[in-house]
Amino acid sequence: MNDKAFDMAGLLAASAPAPAARFGGFADYYFIGGNGDPEQVPLDALAQAAADVIRRDGDRLAIYNLGQGPQGYLPLREFLTGKLNGKRGMSVTAEDILILSGSNQGLNIVFGLFIEPGDTVLVEEYSYGAIFPRLKALGANVVGVPLDADGIDVDTLESILDDLKAKGITPKFLYTIPTIQNPTGSVLPLGRRQSIAGLARQYGFVIFEDECYADLAWVSDVPPAIYALAPDVTVHIGSFSKTLGPALRVGYAVAEWPLLSRMTAAKSDGGTGGLDQMVAAEYFTQYFDAHMASLKPALQTKLTTMVNALEREFGTAAELYVPKGGIFLWLKIPGVDVRTLTEPAAKAGILFNAGPDWACNGEAAQSHLRLCFAMPSHETIEQGVAAFARICFEQTGIPARSANVAREKA
Amino acid sequence: MNDKAFDMAGLLAASAPAPAARFGGFADYYFIGGNGDPEQVPLDALAQAAADVIRRDGDRLAIYNLGQGPQGYLPLREFLTGKLNGKRGMSVTAEDILILSGSNQGLNIVFGLFIEPGDTVLVEEYSYGAIFPRLKALGANVVGVPLDADGIDVDTLESILDDLKAKGITPKFLYTIPTIQNPTGSVLPLGRRQSIAGLARQYGFVIFEDECYADLAWVSDVPPAIYALAPDVTVHIGSFSKTLGPALRVGYAVAEWPLLSRMTAAKSDGGTGGLDQMVAAEYFTQYFDAHMASLKPALQTKLTTMVNALEREFGTAAELYVPKGGIFLWLKIPGVDVRTLTEPAAKAGILFNAGPDWACNGEAAQSHLRLCFAMPSHETIEQGVAAFARICFEQTGIPARSANVAREKA
Repeated sequence: MNDKAFDMAGLLAASAPAPAARFGGFADYYFIGGNGDPEQVPLDALAQAAADVIRRDGDRLAIYNLGQGPQGYLPLREFLTGKLNGKRGMSVTAEDILILSGSNQGLNIVFGLFIEPGDTVLVEEYSYGAIFPRLKALGANVVGVPLDADGIDVDTLESILDDLKAKGITPKFLYTIPTIQNPTGSVLPLGRRQSIAGLARQYGFVIFEDECYADLAWVSDVPPAIYALAPDVTVHIGSFSKTLGPALRVGYAVAEWPLLSRMTAAKSDGGTGGLDQMVAAEYFTQYFDAHMASLKPALQTKLTTMVNALEREFGTAAELYVPKGGIFLWLKIPGVDVRTLTEPAAKAGILFNAGPDWACNGEAAQSHLRLCFAMPSHETIEQGVAAFARICFEQTGIPARSANVAREKA
Repeated sequence: MNDKAFDMAGLLAASAPAPAARFGGFADYYFIGGNGDPEQVPLDALAQAAADVIRRDGDRLAIYNLGQGPQGYLPLREFLTGKLNGKRGMSVTAEDILILSGSNQGLNIVFGLFIEPGDTVLVEEYSYGAIFPRLKALGANVVGVPLDADGIDVDTLESILDDLKAKGITPKFLYTIPTIQNPTGSVLPLGRRQSIAGLARQYGFVIFEDECYADLAWVSDVPPAIYALAPDVTVHIGSFSKTLGPALRVGYAVAEWPLLSRMTAAKSDGGTGGLDQMVAAEYFTQYFDAHMASLKPALQTKLTTMVNALEREFGTAAELYVPKGGIFLWLKIPGVDVRTLTEPAAKAGILFNAGPDWACNGEAAQSHLRLCFAMPSHETIEQGVAAFARICFEQTGIPARSANVAREKA
C-alpha cells in the first residue's frame, strides 16, 4: 500500500486505559471472582426452558428490548415481582423493576446518578472490592461504617451521621449489602434494618441496598429487604449471577419511579441480552425454589470443605467469619500482612482477595483476606488451602502448626 | 415509620439524565429504529441450537465470560473468523476479535478511547443518528465528508484533509459505514476503499469502519471490508442485531492488539450475555448462509413494497436512495422541511427519522428522511406511507398528486 503505517495507539486519549493482558486461563487455585459451581448449572432443564421460550416468544428477538420497552422482558419482571414480594417482603409490581445487564451495571448507574466530585458516600468498612476504584474515579469521599458479626453497627452509624451533619455534610447514600454481606457473610437483623431506614429519613440520604447474594442465604431467619421497610428512600439491586451464573448478564434494580426513570434513562446499552432474559425468566418461573433447594446445600458443603481445610492447616492462627450463605469466606490471620503473600501465592497458582482491596481503610484490613469457594472442586479447595498455608508459613512463620504438627521451613 | 420521607431526586448529580418516559408500546406506523422482521426469526432452528449448546457447553454459564476471557465466547469468535475471512476478505484469527454487547458498545468504546474535547473527527455527511449527540457530549469537532451514490467522495475527503493539515489538525478518525451506508444504503467501491486506506496512512488518522449492515447487502459485487485492505490503520465493528435480532445484544470488534487490548480493557460490563453469545454461535455456525439466503429476499420484498407505495403516493415529488441491502430507505422530498411533519405525523401514529438528526449539517438535510421497513408488515408499510403522504400534503401541499390523482386538502 502507499505510504507507511502509523501507530494507532499514538492517537489515543490520555484517559484511555492501559492495555488488557491476553486471557491466560485460570490459576490452579482460583479463590477470587464471583463464579459459581459449574456442576450446579441445570443443563437439561435449562435447555428445555430455552427451547420452550424461543419457540413461544422468540420472534420478539427481532425487536429491541424484546418489544417490551427499556425496563426489560415482562415475564422476567413478573417472576421478580413474585420473588421479591414472596421472599424479600416487598410490595412491588413489574413497573417498579428495571432489568440490568448484571447488578454491576446498577452500581455504575447509581454511582453515576448521585455522585459529583467531593460528595460523601457511606460504605460498610469491608465491602465489594470493585466499588472502591469506581468511587475514587468519581471523586467521592468514602466514609467507612463499622461492622460487627451482624453487619452495620447502627449506633456508630448515627455518630458518623452526626459528625457529618456538624460539618454540613449530607452523604448521598449508604451503600450496604445487608444480606450475606460481602465479604463478611453476615445478615443484618430486622431491628437494624428499621433503624437504618429511620436514619436515612432523618438525615436525608439514600439507602443503596445490594442484595446480589441474598438468594444464597441458607440460614432460616432472613429478614425482609430494607426496600420492603422503606421504599421511599431505598434503591435495591439484585442479580441472577449467583443463582444461575455470572456469564448470564442479568440483574435488576427496584426503585420508585422518580429514581427508576432516571436509572432507565442512564441505562444506555440498548437493552439487556434478550436470550439471557428470556431463559432466566422461563427457567426460574418454573424451578426457582427447587433450584435453590439444590444449589444452597451444594455451596454449603464446599464452604464446609474450606472451613475444615483452614482449621486443619491454620488451626487457631486464622479467625474465620463463617458466612450465612453465599460463595466466599472472609478470614483474618493476625500478625500477617496478606499483601506480602500475594506474589508468592500467585507464583504457586493461588489467587485470593487481599483484605486491603476490600476495605475502606486498607491498612486496617491488612490481615484479612477473602476466599471464594463455589467454582473450585472440593479437592482443589483442600489442596489450595494447604498450599496457601505453606506459602503463608514460609513468608511469615504463621501458621507455626498445622494438623497438630509443627511446620518446618522448606 | 419515624420521620418524614425526602425526595431522592433532590440528591441527584447535576449531570443526571432527564427521567425516561414509561414505555407505551409502538406507534401504528413505526418506521424508525433498527428492528428486524419478527417473522424471520428461525424459531425451531434457534430453539434446537439453544438446547444443543446448553446441554453441551452450558456449565460454562457458571463462570464469568464463559471461562474464556474478556474477548468472548471462543466458538463465536471462531465463527466470526470464518465469516470475516470468507465474506469480507479479511485474514484474522479469534485473537483479533472482541465480542461486544452490541456494536453500539463499540461506538462508545472507540469514541471514548480516542476523543478528547476539541478533537476533530470525520463523519459521512449523513450518518447513524445516535452518534451525533455522543460526539457532541465528548466535545468532538465533527467534520462532514460528502457522499455521492457510491459513498464517500474521495477527492473531497482529500481536500478536507489538506485543509485540516494546513490548520495543523489531524483528525482522530474517519467514522464510515462503507457497506450499506446508514442512511443512504450505498456500497463503497473497492477503489475508493483503497484510496481511503492510503489517505489514512498518509494523514495519520484511524479508519473506524462500521459494517453492522454489511451482511444484509443483496447486491453481488460487495468489495472487501476496508479492514481487509488496511488492518494496521482500521478498527472494524459488526453486529448480529441485523442478521438475528437486536434484542440479542451481540456485536464484535476487530483490531490489531495494540488497539484491541485497550478496547478490551475499556469494556467494563463483566462480559457480553452468555446465552446470547452461545446461541448465536451455535445457530450461525450451522446455518449462516441458509439464514441469509432466506432473510435478504424477505427484506428486499419489504423494500419493494415501500418503494412502490412511495412512488404511488409521492410520484416524482420524492427522490429515493434505493439501498443495496439493509432495513432502511433514505429519501428526499424537495421543498419540504420534514421537521414540520414530525409532530402531525406522530399524532397520526407515524414515526420517521428526520434528516437533520442523521446529518452533520442538519439544515442541509431538512428535506431528507429515513424510513425503516423490516419490522412493519407489508400492509402496514402501504397504509403508513399513504398516511404519511396525506400528512405531508396537508402540511406542505406536497405531494400535489398521488396515484395520478390530484390531492385535495381534507
